[in-house]
Amino acid sequence: MIEIVLLGSGNVATHLFKAFSAAEGLRVKQVYNHSENSLDFFRSKTEVTTDINELAPADVYLLALKDDVIPEISKKLTQQKALVVHTSGSVSIDALDNCLRRGVFYPLQTFSKDREVNYCSIPFCLEANNSEDLGLLKKLAEKISGKSYEISSEQRKKLHLSAVFVCNFVNHLYAVGEQICQKSEIPFDILKPLILETASKVQHASPAGVQTGPAIRNDRSTINAHLQLLEASQENREIYNILTSAIQTFHGKKL
Amino acid sequence: MIEIVLLGSGNVATHLFKAFSAAEGLRVKQVYNHSENSLDFFRSKTEVTTDINELAPADVYLLALKDDVIPEISKKLTQQKALVVHTSGSVSIDALDNCLRRGVFYPLQTFSKDREVNYCSIPFCLEANNSEDLGLLKKLAEKISGKSYEISSEQRKKLHLSAVFVCNFVNHLYAVGEQICQKSEIPFDILKPLILETASKVQHASPAGVQTGPAIRNDRSTINAHLQLLEASQENREIYNILTSAIQTFHGKKL
Repeated sequence: MIEIVLLGSGNVATHLFKAFSAAEGLRVKQVYNHSENSLDFFRSKTEVTTDINELAPADVYLLALKDDVIPEISKKLTQQKALVVHTSGSVSIDALDNCLRRGVFYPLQTFSKDREVNYCSIPFCLEANNSEDLGLLKKLAEKISGKSYEISSEQRKKLHLSAVFVCNFVNHLYAVGEQICQKSEIPFDILKPLILETASKVQHASPAGVQTGPAIRNDRSTINAHLQLLEASQENREIYNILTSAIQTFHGKKL
Repeated sequence: MIEIVLLGSGNVATHLFKAFSAAEGLRVKQVYNHSENSLDFFRSKTEVTTDINELAPADVYLLALKDDVIPEISKKLTQQKALVVHTSGSVSIDALDNCLRRGVFYPLQTFSKDREVNYCSIPFCLEANNSEDLGLLKKLAEKISGKSYEISSEQRKKLHLSAVFVCNFVNHLYAVGEQICQKSEIPFDILKPLILETASKVQHASPAGVQTGPAIRNDRSTINAHLQLLEASQENREIYNILTSAIQTFHGKKL
């Protein structure tokens, strides 16, 4: 039985809590948050506390907190024997106080409060300072997910940066597509199968190998027609220009 | 029985040929292409020709050709009684000679030669000059797909532009993510579930409503750290800057 104290109550904390609760061989003994209200969801399901000095003993203290409070909270845990891990993509393991047994347990996924997540397909990026602690985190990940990877803090920074490109920036391009459709009274539904197919394609092929469109063909007449259609939005024109140019540079087609 | 002559032998022609062949109540009577070699795939399956003056009579002539040859080829069909349609996202119906019964049959999907496509989920964008011809195209689309939409040439231009954002540009962002991973010896596999979830999310929610990441949070310390990691690639820095700024403008968070 792995016993966990969860610190935090946001999207990541909530999703991890659900996954831990549904798995065998795990128990969330307690959830901590500094504010009383945000603990409502957890109150009926496990012990809760707003006092950092009253944390229950456990195997793992899991800090699913905002990046900037991780160092400060970790300093308050220096008397603890548990393995203290954070769940952030962009914070180094060194943000945790070095008196601690410390580690990272970063689920690489986009979480929304209203949307259920299939944990079997979430990769966990793990880091610890010794093989025993890494083993504990691996066991924890295995119990709720199929996959885990050992990723150093340096690599994790790069991974998080990549995730911004393939998730946050991609989502904004979806939003631009939706905006263009709305302005011409075209149902956004028409684009949905294309969005899904574009993401599905790169599950089995390298994205660089399946690039299509006017940029890689250097189809100037289509590119110019598109830029004209975008005349009203300087922001979207800039996105169009820089991405067209980037595709051509990437594929050595710059003329 | 709807009889079709297919003009072209590229990705779109090949995929449509397969879909038509598998459907009931349709028959591809003939495939035309100007070059003999490119007809090899079709030769054992139906009649083929390289002579535009020897097209078989049919209900629909389907021009799955490069955008710029559509007007020229359509001029050679002016004696024909068939409904002549092209499959291009960015070409107006008016590119087809106005002596013709003309229309557009545009499958909004990304086609690769090696990848099978599930036609049930492809939306067809249809256009014709009268309701009878539109009805014929609807019937054709229904036989191979669940969905068709009546879309004018003006709307289709905008739709094609949107498709460049949500497919071609998105795929390049995947390629950038892959590149960043490769440089740090991180398996790109880690990002694949995130890519799929990001696309799945917007099947049921507006992308503008589910934007996440450092840009929308205006998390300057993460943004600055990312820009520093991108120092070696001016192109990727520019993409990062313009998309971060666009997300903030879009969501009214520009500071």
